[in-house]
Amino acid sequence: MRTIRLVIAFDGSRYSGWQSQKKLSKKPTIQEIFEEKLQKLFGEKITLHGSSRTDSGVHAHGLVAHFKASKPIPDAVIARALNYHLPKDIGVRSAKTVPDNFHARFQAKSKIYEYRIWNHRVRPVFEAPFMLHVPQTLNIKDMRKAARYLVGKHDFSAFKDAKDELDSHVRTIKSLKISKSRTVVRIRIQADGFLTHMVRIIVGTLLDAGKGRIKPDTVREILKSRDRRRAGQTIPPQGLHLLRVIY
Amino acid sequence: MRTIRLVIAFDGSRYSGWQSQKKLSKKPTIQEIFEEKLQKLFGEKITLHGSSRTDSGVHAHGLVAHFKASKPIPDAVIARALNYHLPKDIGVRSAKTVPDNFHARFQAKSKIYEYRIWNHRVRPVFEAPFMLHVPQTLNIKDMRKAARYLVGKHDFSAFKDAKDELDSHVRTIKSLKISKSRTVVRIRIQADGFLTHMVRIIVGTLLDAGKGRIKPDTVREILKSRDRRRAGQTIPPQGLHLLRVIY
Repeated sequence: MRTIRLVIAFDGSRYSGWQSQKKLSKKPTIQEIFEEKLQKLFGEKITLHGSSRTDSGVHAHGLVAHFKASKPIPDAVIARALNYHLPKDIGVRSAKTVPDNFHARFQAKSKIYEYRIWNHRVRPVFEAPFMLHVPQTLNIKDMRKAARYLVGKHDFSAFKDAKDELDSHVRTIKSLKISKSRTVVRIRIQADGFLTHMVRIIVGTLLDAGKGRIKPDTVREILKSRDRRRAGQTIPPQGLHLLRVIY
Repeated sequence: MRTIRLVIAFDGSRYSGWQSQKKLSKKPTIQEIFEEKLQKLFGEKITLHGSSRTDSGVHAHGLVAHFKASKPIPDAVIARALNYHLPKDIGVRSAKTVPDNFHARFQAKSKIYEYRIWNHRVRPVFEAPFMLHVPQTLNIKDMRKAARYLVGKHDFSAFKDAKDELDSHVRTIKSLKISKSRTVVRIRIQADGFLTHMVRIIVGTLLDAGKGRIKPDTVREILKSRDRRRAGQTIPPQGLHLLRVIY
């Protein structure tokens, strides 16, 4: 048995997120598709462990996953064979044999997510599946001011889905950067971990600041309150991209 | 009756090209979709004239079209109403009332097309519907050398589809530029007009030069021969983008 690490990219539009689900969904999950192809390739039952349980509709550019297998297939052949058999909207960037103690989820030191917004009066065409359309002018300075309160180690209970039942809601946001080039606003967040819907609720709240619905300072109060009802809405998944996982 | 000019963008993946066809196709055409929406909006039969008859699967960022209508709907409302009712992969960039003698096709002075190539060993994921995947290393210098022979006024019979039965195959390529940034090669061609499949056959031939299958000088001979069989293959439509029409 050896341990193999995959770096995976996918356009999440047609999928029900990463994780195999007990409840039946019409759309397949990325994990299901990979496990099926891996089992055919290796001729044994394989469980794939992903770094992140991305929501339905979220995209990934560098999600990391690992599995254990016996059949001695060279790394380069694994990547080529998977890419040959996978649908066109899923790809393997690399496959590599790693030390046996590697774990894609538990050893991740931090993750970088980016939320992309098409900020123009006229809606996007080519970018529609990958960005949220916000037609109003956004005050980027106010969004940056608001974002500053979130950087650091905090209890992010106000920015998590009500269904999230983890013991601790303390996470450390290492950086939160907002950039605008032409019609595209990118909000990039690096943290040691993320609660359910955390990025989508944070960006929803920053958009409230950008539209002038709340003052930038209010974000500090929302954070302190630990009350989900005070934060902004959970914005749609199609603008969310998992860029990288750092070990 | 006034004349209205539309600037249109579409992701061509799901469509059977621009023009309404007599033979039945499973996929709708962009023209059909627009005429249906325009007739609902204006309550009268409307014919939409496009600048270009793009092939099935080709994309457009700034295709120009015009129509005549009686009902006095303001330009801004036309654009908004169309964008509201059109599918997400088609958009109206602008709608503008123009002088009555405007004709989207006959008055076009030149058009700019771009062919996009994903030039990397690993196939693209997000770019798959918009680029051709070429895994081999391309010699960009040789491609540029080959391209130089095509710039200017020439008989492009060697670079047209056999079915093209136009009287004249003389066109003027005003510029042909090849750029590479990271994994993406872009071939941008501006000409006063294009023959059927002309861009796709030209790029197919330039790829032969880039892969070392033919010498760059050979392109001059192919051009002179006016023999379609000597040029490269007609490469797939999904990498082709109509960028702009100039009047």
